[in-house]
Amino acid sequence: MTTERHPRHFEEDLGTLKTRLLEMGGLAEERLRMAMRGLVDRDGRLLELVLAGDADINKLHLEVDDRCFKLLALQQPMAVDLRAIVAAVKINSELERVGDLAVNIAEAATRALQFAPVKELIDIPRMALIAQEMLRDALDAYVRRDTVLAQKVLTRDDELDSLKTLVFRELLGMMVRDQAIINASLDLILISRHLERTGDHATNIAEDVIFMVSARDVRHQA
Amino acid sequence: MTTERHPRHFEEDLGTLKTRLLEMGGLAEERLRMAMRGLVDRDGRLLELVLAGDADINKLHLEVDDRCFKLLALQQPMAVDLRAIVAAVKINSELERVGDLAVNIAEAATRALQFAPVKELIDIPRMALIAQEMLRDALDAYVRRDTVLAQKVLTRDDELDSLKTLVFRELLGMMVRDQAIINASLDLILISRHLERTGDHATNIAEDVIFMVSARDVRHQA
Repeated sequence: MTTERHPRHFEEDLGTLKTRLLEMGGLAEERLRMAMRGLVDRDGRLLELVLAGDADINKLHLEVDDRCFKLLALQQPMAVDLRAIVAAVKINSELERVGDLAVNIAEAATRALQFAPVKELIDIPRMALIAQEMLRDALDAYVRRDTVLAQKVLTRDDELDSLKTLVFRELLGMMVRDQAIINASLDLILISRHLERTGDHATNIAEDVIFMVSARDVRHQA
Repeated sequence: MTTERHPRHFEEDLGTLKTRLLEMGGLAEERLRMAMRGLVDRDGRLLELVLAGDADINKLHLEVDDRCFKLLALQQPMAVDLRAIVAAVKINSELERVGDLAVNIAEAATRALQFAPVKELIDIPRMALIAQEMLRDALDAYVRRDTVLAQKVLTRDDELDSLKTLVFRELLGMMVRDQAIINASLDLILISRHLERTGDHATNIAEDVIFMVSARDVRHQA
């Protein structure tokens, strides 16, 4: 059984697919930003908005998967086009999980807000900014098929990792000295882990981009 | 451009793909079990083995992705076969991350072992058993295209979630009463989170199976 390919439709459909992934990325980033602002400004209403659900991201998640299946089934793409669609399937999962992480951050922040502030938050908002930039760059790299930008994303993962370790050590030290802050500190540590995982998702996307463009697998290299 | 399909080769290749995914699942499960036994028996050598790297899983991860691409490019599968291969791409990512979580557990356990035991561990090993069963059932469901078994996996996620909350509350209470155990307790909390995420990956696999078999998307339902 052969299905005729329609190159023009294919390019259009792939264009729409990219637009949808960028939309999802934008939504995920916005929800991360809201969760972080809710934490830093101690604004419970913002956190409630994040907790109210990510219906828009979930809708896009299903739509993107559906588009990928139709493109694979009807257009039978080859080489870089095939890799671009399989990459879209993977990126779609990554973005949906970034949306879930925004919910996890909002949950931990809501608990933390029940207690007095532990300290002025500096490293955690910095982690959030880095994770957001990594996410944006990884998606731009996908749309532009830009492996240099994708490589840049990979190098930033270490920054996030160092900050996570810094936050962990600092808060652990404070908890040991003052047990009144254990509850809130614990949730700040969890938030720093959620931000690190957000960066991991951006890293996964960047690796998918490099494979898509160059058919070269950069994962699991020593 | 048309490529002739070879149904017999296709079935063989799909069979090999399934075997590889089961192998990966077996390795991931084994590493989880080692990390947990290292924690419970306070056996640092077991933890070191887990930390020494998951070269086998990583190798399979690359191989499975490669097999999926070749099947998509050369055989141009349709309908349930197409969905089975896209599911394999996704399941492959999930299993690789379960392998990473075993490393995360071993890291936290290694830190925890520097301190006296906090308590007899009951709920955390129970969480690990549930997560391992979920993983095994999800993979069996994939191989057998068994949606009933896949649905069973989805229902067990709540069990893990309840245990995670239980562990969190209990250890938090203990930390507040006795700050000498803050370090070790914190790592036990992190381990319970890693186990919950392991269950999440099994859930993702089960959802992929249901979609593969029935072309019905059970994700994001209220």
